[in-house]
Amino acid sequence: MRAVTIQDGELVVEERPDPEPSRGEILVRVKAAGLNGADMLQLRGAYPAPPGSPPDIPGMELAGEVAALGPGADRFEVGDRVMAVVGGGGQAELAVVQERAAMPVPETLDWPAAGGVPEVFTTAHDALFTQADLRPGEHLLVHGAAGGVGTAGVQLGRAAGARVTATVRREELRQGVEQLGASVIEPDGFGEHGPFDVVLELVGAGNLHENLKALATGGRIAVIGIGGSGATAELNLGLVMAKRARIHGSTLRARPLEEKAIAMRRVEREVLPQFDAGLLTVPVAASFALDEVERAYERFQAGGKLGKIVLVL
Amino acid sequence: MRAVTIQDGELVVEERPDPEPSRGEILVRVKAAGLNGADMLQLRGAYPAPPGSPPDIPGMELAGEVAALGPGADRFEVGDRVMAVVGGGGQAELAVVQERAAMPVPETLDWPAAGGVPEVFTTAHDALFTQADLRPGEHLLVHGAAGGVGTAGVQLGRAAGARVTATVRREELRQGVEQLGASVIEPDGFGEHGPFDVVLELVGAGNLHENLKALATGGRIAVIGIGGSGATAELNLGLVMAKRARIHGSTLRARPLEEKAIAMRRVEREVLPQFDAGLLTVPVAASFALDEVERAYERFQAGGKLGKIVLVL
Repeated sequence: MRAVTIQDGELVVEERPDPEPSRGEILVRVKAAGLNGADMLQLRGAYPAPPGSPPDIPGMELAGEVAALGPGADRFEVGDRVMAVVGGGGQAELAVVQERAAMPVPETLDWPAAGGVPEVFTTAHDALFTQADLRPGEHLLVHGAAGGVGTAGVQLGRAAGARVTATVRREELRQGVEQLGASVIEPDGFGEHGPFDVVLELVGAGNLHENLKALATGGRIAVIGIGGSGATAELNLGLVMAKRARIHGSTLRARPLEEKAIAMRRVEREVLPQFDAGLLTVPVAASFALDEVERAYERFQAGGKLGKIVLVL
Repeated sequence: MRAVTIQDGELVVEERPDPEPSRGEILVRVKAAGLNGADMLQLRGAYPAPPGSPPDIPGMELAGEVAALGPGADRFEVGDRVMAVVGGGGQAELAVVQERAAMPVPETLDWPAAGGVPEVFTTAHDALFTQADLRPGEHLLVHGAAGGVGTAGVQLGRAAGARVTATVRREELRQGVEQLGASVIEPDGFGEHGPFDVVLELVGAGNLHENLKALATGGRIAVIGIGGSGATAELNLGLVMAKRARIHGSTLRARPLEEKAIAMRRVEREVLPQFDAGLLTVPVAASFALDEVERAYERFQAGGKLGKIVLVL
């Protein structure tokens, strides 16, 4: 199979042996694979793949057709359309996926859209509902709403009956985020638009103090990304106590399979039906062929995109 | 009735009109009333009583006999032994208590012990179980374990099957905390004794970074007190994400009645039976008569006590 590989910090498409599915795994002929911030970190050597994943083939999500079943794999049949979160190895013609980390592709999604679903919708759903317990009628603030997780978070918040406010770094992306159902505000002085019950933080620590000040009593801050404004900031624990606030952070990639599988079952139940019902969409900013992978990564890192950058095979 | 009052930053015992119970309230003849850090703050003008509580009579917890029932109050009968969390007004011969904020006194507790239960055991139980979801077999670290909430937290952790490690500021209190079931370690370098699944923080922000570094994956930090080492510290959100950590803070006093009532029902069900079963005790470091209230507050502020300082009437 042909695969994107990382060699000395460079992206190289090359021939690799076809992987074989072991017990409980499925082999997927990849049709589309979304890019994520983690791929950019891995390219820089900062975020190695967890044990058990191909160490030098990037790609944390994919969609494709089941090509073969490993022993004991019985959730899908050969030919089924599936999408999955993987620890790595998604950006290749073939990928081995634990069947419990795979989900069926909703009928209405084409391949590029399906390739951009698993990582960001699972991450956003886990952060908003499993961790932050977002409830109907609550006020959600999404920082950095134009990206993959952001556009998923805005839509999931809206579809669950929350009022959604969003900050967007680039003026030209405001309208797209508004069309997803958010009131878009300026990042500067965002706190004036609170109080917020839940904050989905995709930008970084620079927002921490104002997030906390603008939080409603009992509010929750879910930190999923810190690429935009750094990792550290001063925290006032007196304010955390007075607000009865909760701050939590997470990553999806490092979790053990059983936790990923639970997150995925929740997405199957609570998210996937909403695609076919027309309540959710997957904004794909641009798609690239496997051989254009360098341009795809450049496009991702340039920012200023609404939604996902996807490799299509 | 005679009551402790705060007048221009001074404690004065003086005669006040007897309060009368309104709908759903009970009048309690107070037998014992524990002191808490919040009383010290209120004496300095820093933590006013919430609306609906006597503004100038301190006291956030009490135990005593039901002296009269307001209209519609039917949880208790006149003469019943009760203990309660109140927004203020506990340090007086009579106090009006919303019946949903009152609990029966376990048979085996005498009055000084009962007067020291409601605030600290409710606070510790809420922080450890409702917020931090402490589970059997987990490793709990209690910072500042010798005080009222600390001694409650150590015992509740042990009684729920957690392994409990504790820091104590004063060497002479180590043994007492060990007898409650904790391994007591030096505050300096406490992180070497981790990883900890749950940290109950009663000292302050000075511990924040080391707490986070020593936290197990998926660990929770419950911040309940910041008197010892200040309110602010730098937080590394990258570490919060990598640990999938949760930081939450709370206060009990400011909550609406319905939330306090829920916390109390949980204490009735999960904590009170453990007193009569001999699994929990109430360390009372010293008790004082109402007229000795100034000495009682001085004793509280001097620190170096194991458990509660209680006024007995």
